[in-house]
Amino acid sequence: MRQSTTTLSVRTPGLGLHEVTDRITAWVADQGMREGLLTVFIRHTSASLLIQENAAPAARRDLERYFARIAPESAEYEHDDEGPDDMPAHLRAALTNTQLSIPLIGGRLTLGTWQGVYLFEHRRRPHDRQLALHLLGE
Amino acid sequence: MRQSTTTLSVRTPGLGLHEVTDRITAWVADQGMREGLLTVFIRHTSASLLIQENAAPAARRDLERYFARIAPESAEYEHDDEGPDDMPAHLRAALTNTQLSIPLIGGRLTLGTWQGVYLFEHRRRPHDRQLALHLLGE
Amino acid sequence: MRQSTTTLSVRTPGLGLHEVTDRITAWVADQGMREGLLTVFIRHTSASLLIQENAAPAARRDLERYFARIAPESAEYEHDDEGPDDMPAHLRAALTNTQLSIPLIGGRLTLGTWQGVYLFEHRRRPHDRQLALHLLGE
Repeated sequence: MRQSTTTLSVRTPGLGLHEVTDRITAWVADQGMREGLLTVFIRHTSASLLIQENAAPAARRDLERYFARIAPESAEYEHDDEGPDDMPAHLRAALTNTQLSIPLIGGRLTLGTWQGVYLFEHRRRPHDRQLALHLLGE
Repeated sequence: MRQSTTTLSVRTPGLGLHEVTDRITAWVADQGMREGLLTVFIRHTSASLLIQENAAPAARRDLERYFARIAPESAEYEHDDEGPDDMPAHLRAALTNTQLSIPLIGGRLTLGTWQGVYLFEHRRRPHDRQLALHLLGE
Repeated sequence: MRQSTTTLSVRTPGLGLHEVTDRITAWVADQGMREGLLTVFIRHTSASLLIQENAAPAARRDLERYFARIAPESAEYEHDDEGPDDMPAHLRAALTNTQLSIPLIGGRLTLGTWQGVYLFEHRRRPHDRQLALHLLGE
């Protein structure tokens, strides 16, 4: 058994779900393992990770609108050092994931047919985001 | 150190929390490890995983009603290809978990006394769901 | 490759986010690994884990108020065996995390500059909580 690690930088254009499946699967393929466990960790508290529907753009728009509605921009937050999109970003990150682990079986990540891995940017402006990846296996 | 992987098929009767603790612990026991890490991954975006109270059925009913209330069926979603329970299913999955990892110590999963592992079905009709399991340890 | 496991007991003073980053990183440092994967698992259904902003106390207060608002104490729950803070505790735990995994690269956990690991206590009274830790690596 062995392990590989790396850090991926992702430039986001601002608010919304940005697919990173291809970048992650390409790195996993390069490690040449058949069975194992991939972990993806996002090093931020105002962006997060989500595995969701990869076929219907409308589903992604509904997801973005839903999180904007249940954790809205508002004047009621105490913490607004970086503007009105600061605190809602932390809330939307708290409701989704900082980390995802995906088994590798038979040389492929076990993502279902309709599953894609998304970086969920919660700030309005473009950001450089870092993902730490860990792959264990053989 | 070694690893084992498998895929479990689970037939759900429709909406709600369906316990899978026994099926998972039985497979883990079969691998004969004492210390390690189990990962459970659900290969779908309209069903999810949750560790919750295993003693009180009323707590599970409250959980089901709560997610039905904060991510309701509604005519407002843009994505409704598969009916009114389609988009709320993705939202409820996004709010819960696609993956769970549980340490194995002293030959037992470290689940607390009141913790059970549940497959949370978010579609109204029965579905066949797949769980990918990865166990690492010795 | 090797693994270490332990259980940490954490006494919480009641409701809110309690930082456990230092206790976790101290245990990881004691294991003397350079590359690996840490998993933290909370053995309860009325407390949870969250990685969040470690610099601004106001952000933590906003987070606490937000979860109190979207999963409020209410007379409408069927399950109230242990009082009005019982069922909201399960809901807030369901919306956050029972488990977190963090890669270890170059001898350090890959937590971002502003990320802290928090035990999120959802019951009003002080509680003794147990975290199971698993570290794999070399």
